[in-house]
Amino acid sequence: MKLHWSPRSPFVRKVMVFAPETGLVDRLTCTRTAVAMKAPNAALLPDNPLSKIPTLVLDDGSPLYDSGVICEYLDTLHDRAKLFPPDGPARWTALRRQALGDGFLDFLLLWRHERERSPPSQTLLDAFAEKYRATMISLEQEVTALDRTSFGIGHIAIGCSLSYLDFRFADLGWRSGYPRIAVWHASFAQRPSVKATEIVED
Amino acid sequence: MKLHWSPRSPFVRKVMVFAPETGLVDRLTCTRTAVAMKAPNAALLPDNPLSKIPTLVLDDGSPLYDSGVICEYLDTLHDRAKLFPPDGPARWTALRRQALGDGFLDFLLLWRHERERSPPSQTLLDAFAEKYRATMISLEQEVTALDRTSFGIGHIAIGCSLSYLDFRFADLGWRSGYPRIAVWHASFAQRPSVKATEIVED
Repeated sequence: MKLHWSPRSPFVRKVMVFAPETGLVDRLTCTRTAVAMKAPNAALLPDNPLSKIPTLVLDDGSPLYDSGVICEYLDTLHDRAKLFPPDGPARWTALRRQALGDGFLDFLLLWRHERERSPPSQTLLDAFAEKYRATMISLEQEVTALDRTSFGIGHIAIGCSLSYLDFRFADLGWRSGYPRIAVWHASFAQRPSVKATEIVED
Repeated sequence: MKLHWSPRSPFVRKVMVFAPETGLVDRLTCTRTAVAMKAPNAALLPDNPLSKIPTLVLDDGSPLYDSGVICEYLDTLHDRAKLFPPDGPARWTALRRQALGDGFLDFLLLWRHERERSPPSQTLLDAFAEKYRATMISLEQEVTALDRTSFGIGHIAIGCSLSYLDFRFADLGWRSGYPRIAVWHASFAQRPSVKATEIVED
């Protein structure tokens, strides 16, 4: 399977953490595909008209996206512990956590973009900051439940969103205000799948 | 169950189309919750720190989001034909289509926001226009397959995104360039669930 990939996309990283956790690394052939909000990638559009990565192309040529769909598909291809609970409350909690991590990343990407605009909209910057604080408070409250739940897609999405804070929002110094989720993230960051996909600036 | 709702949100509309299709309208108590990119709703943040709607609150107080997670949860509560195929290629096609409709809406909302900025970024406006054309070409190519597939979450997401074009981007006159998906949408728009949720400007 071909994966449209980039080393610094936090959504791609979800897949790249998921694959070794499920023993599927060898099934993915990664193709570097650059995307930017300001510049759709014409070569990617036939596989994904949204010009977003990750996009997976199955061996029969059919495309799959977004990161959540790709991970759930990959979860059907292995016999290890499933990272998507099949049903019941565990499933809805995991999917809600994934939506939280993904939605966090969505607005962090917009926030970063806004910070680089000239001039930025202060109203928007303030709105992003307020959502950031609300999200961190929510995560801080969820630490005990996260620890009690088997590692899965919710953990991956939340962990990758916090790692993205380190990569692009180091100035926030998020750990000082949210010590419990910082401890959780330190444990997440020790997983071999996470260490192997650490995002570094060029 | 309480649904944080607004009459003009295209993502809320997915749920409001889904509910009558599955006989679940009476299970939802809709609470009007206004959200805006520029102004997080403080009352919503404890249920959803992303300040996005739809957000569902279960009877035990636990929140569910986003629209896709809510719809998949609702799909477990009824005995009619399921709108999420349980497995196999039909599932991945349906989920990829939902990601297409949702991603289309995501950038349409950003595009609308950019058009209202002063001054807008022409580079961004051009990027949105290019993704719009790529998405419409992709939908035009998918019409036959859409028609052959049982109605489900993919149809709802794509249909709601096209209806949003009518609501906020009437100036594009999308039907003239994409006649096959226009015919498909005309049929979608005749469903009672869709007619009952038509979005109107105040």
